[in-house]
Amino acid sequence: MVVLGIDPGLATLGYGVLKKERGTITVLDYGVILTPKEERLPQRLLRIERGLTEIIEKFHPDEVAMEELFFTNNKTTGIAVAEARGVALLTCVKNVPKLFEYTPMQIKQGLTGYGRADKQQMQQMVKLLLKLKSVPKPDDAADALAVALCHTNASRLSGAFMM
Amino acid sequence: MVVLGIDPGLATLGYGVLKKERGTITVLDYGVILTPKEERLPQRLLRIERGLTEIIEKFHPDEVAMEELFFTNNKTTGIAVAEARGVALLTCVKNVPKLFEYTPMQIKQGLTGYGRADKQQMQQMVKLLLKLKSVPKPDDAADALAVALCHTNASRLSGAFMM
Repeated sequence: MVVLGIDPGLATLGYGVLKKERGTITVLDYGVILTPKEERLPQRLLRIERGLTEIIEKFHPDEVAMEELFFTNNKTTGIAVAEARGVALLTCVKNVPKLFEYTPMQIKQGLTGYGRADKQQMQQMVKLLLKLKSVPKPDDAADALAVALCHTNASRLSGAFMM
Repeated sequence: MVVLGIDPGLATLGYGVLKKERGTITVLDYGVILTPKEERLPQRLLRIERGLTEIIEKFHPDEVAMEELFFTNNKTTGIAVAEARGVALLTCVKNVPKLFEYTPMQIKQGLTGYGRADKQQMQQMVKLLLKLKSVPKPDDAADALAVALCHTNASRLSGAFMM
């Protein structure tokens, strides 16, 4: 089974692709889709759709695991991130059989057994569980691997929500 | 010139289609795209994409005018509306030559010359300016006609923002 993890964002959308076979998890790819701040919003959304479609066409994921949004105080950034997430969801529902979403707390619990783990602890767990030589960079790619990893472990979770 | 006005929403997305020819504005269509609350978010986003694509294929708008979001206290609803707006923007940028966005205040100013007009005043102005027999229903359709109308009058505005 191939799982695509997505950490949604407008300027930077993180992705991570894992393969789970006979209990062994391997990393197929990870990285970010970047959209230039100088471009208009619709053009940036188009870049997200195209970038994600390329990744899906390359790896043919069976399932997508996407992080759920929660809003901080910066509402304006929040709107743009949600607009980008809508585009990511649309692209996935058109091309991937199953979609799941996880809250940041579920991802932390899934990886560390502790819902309030900090960013550094999470990154070390991603490195450890995927047997990587260093923490994946940038952070958004590590976050995407975390949500994919959380999903491959989802039998341990009670709250996996299929969208 | 054909203008498609959009009042973005997840449960109800309002649209209004106007034609401006030699200074005369006529209504080609208006209505709403509804998505059932029982369905998963990705399925609802797919309905929005399909519904909007049908409208665009039917009327071939030259320009889209979309209302900008501002967040109220209900952040959770706000996220879903922004996700739906992202999908609407993506659908439009792929199919319509030009996109514009207007803040609620710009729309009010454009129609009534007064940035704080209330909902009823706005609806009466839409009815009056489009020479309709009654106020268009539902409200989201009237709001979409308002943003389309605001755009056809945009030469009167200083703040029209092309996306």
